[in-house]
Amino acid sequence: MAEDLAETEDEVLDQPRIDAVLAAVEAGDGEGVDSLLDPLHAADIADLLEQIGPSDRRALLALWSHEIDGEILSEISEGIREEVVEAMPREVLAEAVRDLETDDVVDILEDLDAPQQELILTALEDADRVAVEQAMAYPENSAGRLMQRELVVAPEHWTVGEAIDFLRGAEHLPDQFYHVILVDPRMTPVGYVTLGRILSSGREARLRDITEDSFRSVTATDAEADVAYIFNQYHLISCPVVDGSGRLVGVITIDDAMNVLDEEHEEDMLRLAGVGDEADVSDGPVETVKQRLPWLVVNLFTASLSALVISQFQNTIATLVALAALMPIVASTGGIAGTQSLAVAVRALATRDLTRANAARVVRRELLAGMMNGVGLALILGAAGVVIFGDWHLGAVLGLAMIVNQIVAALGGVLVPLTLERMGLDPALASGTFVTTLTDVMGFFAFLGLATVMLT
Amino acid sequence: MAEDLAETEDEVLDQPRIDAVLAAVEAGDGEGVDSLLDPLHAADIADLLEQIGPSDRRALLALWSHEIDGEILSEISEGIREEVVEAMPREVLAEAVRDLETDDVVDILEDLDAPQQELILTALEDADRVAVEQAMAYPENSAGRLMQRELVVAPEHWTVGEAIDFLRGAEHLPDQFYHVILVDPRMTPVGYVTLGRILSSGREARLRDITEDSFRSVTATDAEADVAYIFNQYHLISCPVVDGSGRLVGVITIDDAMNVLDEEHEEDMLRLAGVGDEADVSDGPVETVKQRLPWLVVNLFTASLSALVISQFQNTIATLVALAALMPIVASTGGIAGTQSLAVAVRALATRDLTRANAARVVRRELLAGMMNGVGLALILGAAGVVIFGDWHLGAVLGLAMIVNQIVAALGGVLVPLTLERMGLDPALASGTFVTTLTDVMGFFAFLGLATVMLT
Repeated sequence: MAEDLAETEDEVLDQPRIDAVLAAVEAGDGEGVDSLLDPLHAADIADLLEQIGPSDRRALLALWSHEIDGEILSEISEGIREEVVEAMPREVLAEAVRDLETDDVVDILEDLDAPQQELILTALEDADRVAVEQAMAYPENSAGRLMQRELVVAPEHWTVGEAIDFLRGAEHLPDQFYHVILVDPRMTPVGYVTLGRILSSGREARLRDITEDSFRSVTATDAEADVAYIFNQYHLISCPVVDGSGRLVGVITIDDAMNVLDEEHEEDMLRLAGVGDEADVSDGPVETVKQRLPWLVVNLFTASLSALVISQFQNTIATLVALAALMPIVASTGGIAGTQSLAVAVRALATRDLTRANAARVVRRELLAGMMNGVGLALILGAAGVVIFGDWHLGAVLGLAMIVNQIVAALGGVLVPLTLERMGLDPALASGTFVTTLTDVMGFFAFLGLATVMLT
Repeated sequence: MAEDLAETEDEVLDQPRIDAVLAAVEAGDGEGVDSLLDPLHAADIADLLEQIGPSDRRALLALWSHEIDGEILSEISEGIREEVVEAMPREVLAEAVRDLETDDVVDILEDLDAPQQELILTALEDADRVAVEQAMAYPENSAGRLMQRELVVAPEHWTVGEAIDFLRGAEHLPDQFYHVILVDPRMTPVGYVTLGRILSSGREARLRDITEDSFRSVTATDAEADVAYIFNQYHLISCPVVDGSGRLVGVITIDDAMNVLDEEHEEDMLRLAGVGDEADVSDGPVETVKQRLPWLVVNLFTASLSALVISQFQNTIATLVALAALMPIVASTGGIAGTQSLAVAVRALATRDLTRANAARVVRRELLAGMMNGVGLALILGAAGVVIFGDWHLGAVLGLAMIVNQIVAALGGVLVPLTLERMGLDPALASGTFVTTLTDVMGFFAFLGLATVMLT
């Protein structure tokens, strides 16, 4: 019998299984597809749908779309969700969304077009539809969109026994809940009790005597990024959400917070690299170009600044053509140093480890580190210049330009994101382009300027 | 009375409070410091210690180190943990670590020197010390290091009533637990029951009838990155850990998995930028130089490759000095395109959205996107070349070089991390340097090569 239980462990999605699914799809073998996909977790089925090609996906959906349930639907990435919803028979779609909790329905709705939104809303039961529409009334990326309205609450005067009896009699409980939230008669949350404490206390214990020491709530209009920060910082599992007047309106659970955190990380990384933050590995070439070309065009103009700087020194270069070969070294090493400084600063701003309290010290640290790196690199590059070209002056120009540009890079890497943050903008946004433009322009200017003074 | 409870909500760490703490420290007012720090969450106290300067920190620790508890100690970042442990009186340290669960003790020990490790181990009770030493015997970054040994298990034949009676009578329960793990007589986990299901079922219900459908366990030697992936992919709250023979030896909870995920993200971002993955915003300038200079030196050599390429075309440049000013445009725009492609690929590899199943399609997508971006940029740059220099040939050279380099950048951005991954290396490691070297070298070569053929 133990073995029966152990078999409930889900199977994994690996290459042989993907190949088998594709073979079954090609053979039009619906039952084969079903027996291969059925043991998989919804998240793995969603991954499979994302990873196979568009024509395979269409064929698979034609065979199997009636088996897609709410869980699979909420695991599917935004990029292909519309396609999947389109392929699902109306009654299957209705069934699927009725299974879900309101926060998951909201998450799905957010990324769909109006006609598809309508389709899903009409499929919901009245009470759920009202709850979903209320959630959609909160601003995008707010706690109100993230929370579920299915709550487990108890009056603050209840005992453990009363709570257990209530839970045993309850008709609808959320799929996952980890706390019972205590409320006063005005529905203001006043504390919460973990299920572990309830289970390990006697029936006569009063809930208010076994609440957690630390209790936090968020407001429905709070930004989801702030909510994710609170979960991460204070290791929360769930967190009550209140409205403007302090009444309990919902609860956010760790899985939703983890999703937000994951998206924030992704956004930081993609924005730093100058890609639209919606970029997905399953996007087609046209979407990819739409995300990337705008930044490349911006960069075309900023790169022209470098060209403009260099063109001011055409006479110097004509006198000593070797300068043209050497100048990218100073600029490129500066670009790398700027990126290093930038990555640390953007990350620290995201985790709120870089604040007013230490900003001045971090800037000073960057200045010192930039000088030291500059001197180290200058010694190597300067010596190489002297040895290869047999010219002390050229070595000195290379070394000095390197020091100047390393300092500019280190400072730019921290000051650019700090300034964007102070202006209320995303520090990762466009930082990369700003900083490399700065280091390119300064690199070429310092090197060619010094060369003009010292070598010609 | 409701208000009493509400006051347990923790206060926050903001700039006025930091200033007040620093003023109290300067005045040598230990009680003032205490009253300011006491209402704060351990994570916020740790942040404060990280964000103030080294001399303020020393003064604060001298006044207040006897108040540091286990929770604060485990929240403090590795960079300053050694300093804090050093400052704590022995008996306070002993008290602090005795409070912690074994996984948190292991986490602290990992980053300390041998003498400090010894200090902490001797402070533990015998049973805990054995548990910690056993955990330390597992490889670094494995599930065995991450798990806690405090478990809540029940024989598979128990009823809800038996489980509740057991929990009420238990002397030591973990601080946080979300499931009861069912085991067979050989201590093999066979399923788990959420506390919510236990609370909402009648006393006579059998635990094995209310287990979760989906049940996963990990092996103690599994990599922590794999564990974090499973938590994220399957939305787990906790996960049993078994040894090589399948016996239950511990449990990993979501907060530990979230930490690992957070560190992985940080590593990806820092490695992509060519900074040591231990870089922290609170590091001093010397540590910062140690993390960054090695990569800068590597980049100095790779940048010299570009210089070498350019030097082969000195005659061409001497003939038309304007080329020296224009060549960085092609190289730099290629660098940005490579970084874009790279960020998407590294991220997708980390979330396992880029696999063998779709690698070929993603590479094809990059090729197409690179071509389209190249043509778009070529039209703008080529036209500018024609207009500004009045030379059709120069415009054509700029445009063609741009197309070539955009294709190289898009392909390099995805092929470099894919190749590193196939070789069993971290795809983020050094990818940035590889790709920008590639786009620089190809950018200069394509532009100057074409110019030599078409313009001279």
